Amino acid sequence: MAGGDARNGLQMVGEREASGDVAPLVTKASLPPCCVKALASAPESDARCHATVVSGWFSQSHGKAGKVQYYNNPMWPGEAHSLKVEKVLYQGKSPYQEVLVFESATYGKVLVLDGIVQLTDKDECAYQEMIAHLPLCSIPSPKTVLVIGGGDGGVLREIARHKSVEVIEICEIDKLVIDVCKEFFPDLSIGFDDPRVRLHVGDAVEYLRNAPEGKYDAIIVDSSDPIGPAQELVEKPFFDMIARALRPGGVLCNQAESMWLHTHLIQDMLSICRESFKGSVRYAWTSVPTYPSGVIGFLLCSKDGLPVDFTNPINPIEKLEGATSAGREINFYNSEMHKAAFAIPTFAKRELATVYVSSKKDQSNSKEEAPKDKIGSQEALFTA
Amino acid sequence: MAGGDARNGLQMVGEREASGDVAPLVTKASLPPCCVKALASAPESDARCHATVVSGWFSQSHGKAGKVQYYNNPMWPGEAHSLKVEKVLYQGKSPYQEVLVFESATYGKVLVLDGIVQLTDKDECAYQEMIAHLPLCSIPSPKTVLVIGGGDGGVLREIARHKSVEVIEICEIDKLVIDVCKEFFPDLSIGFDDPRVRLHVGDAVEYLRNAPEGKYDAIIVDSSDPIGPAQELVEKPFFDMIARALRPGGVLCNQAESMWLHTHLIQDMLSICRESFKGSVRYAWTSVPTYPSGVIGFLLCSKDGLPVDFTNPINPIEKLEGATSAGREINFYNSEMHKAAFAIPTFAKRELATVYVSSKKDQSNSKEEAPKDKIGSQEALFTA
Repeated sequence: MAGGDARNGLQMVGEREASGDVAPLVTKASLPPCCVKALASAPESDARCHATVVSGWFSQSHGKAGKVQYYNNPMWPGEAHSLKVEKVLYQGKSPYQEVLVFESATYGKVLVLDGIVQLTDKDECAYQEMIAHLPLCSIPSPKTVLVIGGGDGGVLREIARHKSVEVIEICEIDKLVIDVCKEFFPDLSIGFDDPRVRLHVGDAVEYLRNAPEGKYDAIIVDSSDPIGPAQELVEKPFFDMIARALRPGGVLCNQAESMWLHTHLIQDMLSICRESFKGSVRYAWTSVPTYPSGVIGFLLCSKDGLPVDFTNPINPIEKLEGATSAGREINFYNSEMHKAAFAIPTFAKRELATVYVSSKKDQSNSKEEAPKDKIGSQEALFTA
Repeated sequence: MAGGDARNGLQMVGEREASGDVAPLVTKASLPPCCVKALASAPESDARCHATVVSGWFSQSHGKAGKVQYYNNPMWPGEAHSLKVEKVLYQGKSPYQEVLVFESATYGKVLVLDGIVQLTDKDECAYQEMIAHLPLCSIPSPKTVLVIGGGDGGVLREIARHKSVEVIEICEIDKLVIDVCKEFFPDLSIGFDDPRVRLHVGDAVEYLRNAPEGKYDAIIVDSSDPIGPAQELVEKPFFDMIARALRPGGVLCNQAESMWLHTHLIQDMLSICRESFKGSVRYAWTSVPTYPSGVIGFLLCSKDGLPVDFTNPINPIEKLEGATSAGREINFYNSEMHKAAFAIPTFAKRELATVYVSSKKDQSNSKEEAPKDKIGSQEALFTA
C-alpha cells in the first residue's frame, strides 16, 4: 500500500556519476583552514552526493521542516559518529522518510533512514540476531511470529532458523525500504525468500487492530527511533494491542534505545509495558558499534500465562537442528550472550528505578509497592 | 623523573581567552558550502583552540612526524566519533605525548592524549570500575596491588574500595597527565589521596625489572593504545616481567582493545599471555560509549598457583563493607556485570580461535592440541 511502486526510484548514484555530469562543488585550493582539517578524503566525493556527507564522511544527522541539523540529532545531541564514504549507492524519498545507502570504508554497506544509521554489513548481526533470538529462544517451540518494521529482512532471516515456526508475518509501512534492501543488502533481504513469510505493506497499528486476539507466540518490533513514522510505536495503545494479539504466555521483543543516552525513554516504555503485560518485563542490551553510544537495548515482555524467564534460554539455539548455520552462520548470538544481555550496569538500575518510584508515587491507585532504595530490591523492576 | 615539573605548563586556555587576545581564524561568511555543513556551533570556537577541534567539534585523530591525520586514526581507520566542545580547558605537551582537556556538551570533561579520548566524566566509570574489580573481585583478600599507567587516578580510586589492600603502587611515565588530572578531574585524581598509594613517576619496564619476584597479588595495566609510549607494553618481555612480579596465583588485568576492531591485536596478546602465564587467560569486555566501536576489552591472566576462575567473583563487591559507596558510589560494576563481561560474541570466538589455530600450526614444538572447529572446543581458548 504505502510507498507505491518505489522500484521506479531505484536509480543508482553510481550510474549518474558514470555519465560524468556531476562536478565537484569545491576544490582543495578554495578551502579555508578549518575545512582542510575536515577534508579526510578526495574533495570530489563531497557534498554533491548527499547532504549528510561532508568531505567524504557521513555523519549522523536529522532535519525537519527544511532545517538540517548537522551533528545535532535531537536523539543524541553533542556527539556524532562518522563513517568514511567510498561511494553513495542510492538516495531516494518515500512518503515516510529519506533513504540513503552508501558503501563505507570499513563497515561495508550502510543503510540510513532520515539521516540515522539503521544497519551496516559489519555489525547488523548483533542487532538482528539478538532482537530475534532473545524472544524466540525464551519460549518452547514458537510457531506464529509477527514482525513489525524490519523491512530490511534481517529479522526474518533470523526467525527462519527456528524450524518450529510455521508462519512469519511482517508488517512494514515503507515499501521503499524493502525494495532498496533487496537491491543492496541481499544478505538481509534473503529473509523474505523463506516460504513461511507473509508480507503486509502498511500501518502496524491498523494491522494489529484487525489481528485475531491471542494469535501470536511472539511479536518482534524492529522499529526506527521514535521520531518520524515510528512515533506511535512507543505509546500505550500500541502496547495494549500487542498484548491483545499475543497468546497467553506469548512474548514481545521491542527495540528499546540506549541505556547510556535514553534512560527516560526506557523507563517510559518499562512503565507502560508493566501495565500492558502481566507477565515478566525485562530490559536487555547489546553492543552495536554504529549505533549512538555503541549499544542498543531491547524490552522483553511476556503476557500473563505460562511464566517466561527471559534470562535463561529454554530453547537454546545450539540445540536446534541446523539453526546456527541456516542460510548464513550465526555471527553474534549464543546462549552466553543471551544471558549476559540482561546484566545491567549499576547506574542504569539506579536511574530506571528512581524514575519508576516517582511515576508510581503519582498513581494514587497503585496496588504495588514501589521498589526500595537498595539495588537488591530494584531487581524486582526488571523481573516484574 | 619523566616529565619534569609539568605544573608550570598548566595555563588554562580559558584564562588566555578571557584576555581577549585570540581572534577567530574564520568567519561564517568566508566558508564554502561543505564547511557550512560541518559548522554545528559558533565559528568563534574553531580551530584556534586545538588542531583536533573543527567548528566546535572534537574528533579522534592522530598525527606523527608533523602529519596530522584527521578522522584517520591508524587504530580505527574509516570512522570517527565527535564530541561537541563547549570550551577547551587545557592543552600542553609532555616529553611523551600531547595532552588536551575540554568541556564537552554532553559527556562532561574529556581527557585526550595524542588525539585519542582517554576518558570522559560521563563514562569513565565503566572503564575504571571494570579494569579494577574484574581482577580484585576474582581473588580472595588482595593485599599488594601495582598499577601501570593510570595517571588519572581512577583505577586507584577503585582499588581503594578494597579494605584488604595494604599497598597500592602506581608507576606512571608521564607526570603531566597526573598534574592535569589533579587540576581538571578531581573525581578521578582523588585516588591519589589514599594513604596506601605510593607513586613512582617513571618507565614501567624498568620498574618491573627491579621489582622483587612474586611481590604482587594483582597488577593492573591501564595503558593507552599501543602506539606511542605504550608500545612496549604489549610485547612478550613485558608480560614475562609481569608474571615474574606476581605471586603464585596472582592476577593481571590488562587493557586489551575492541573485539569489533582489533581481534588481531587481542589474539597476539592472548598468545603471548598464554605463554607468559600458566594459569587461566580470559578475554572480557565492557561498554564505553566514547571509545572506538563503543567497547573496550580486558585480558585477565593468572599465574600458576591457586587456580583462579575469573568468571565467578569469589570476592563480590556487594559483600565488602562500605565498598560500593566508598568515596563515590559505584556507577557501573556489579557482580552480574562481572560475569556477563566474559560472554563473547560468536564472531569474536571464531576469529580469535582461527588466528590461534594458525599461530599454533607455525610452532613446530607445540605441545598442545589446536582447538577444533566447534564453538564448544573454542571455549578452551578463553579458559586456558
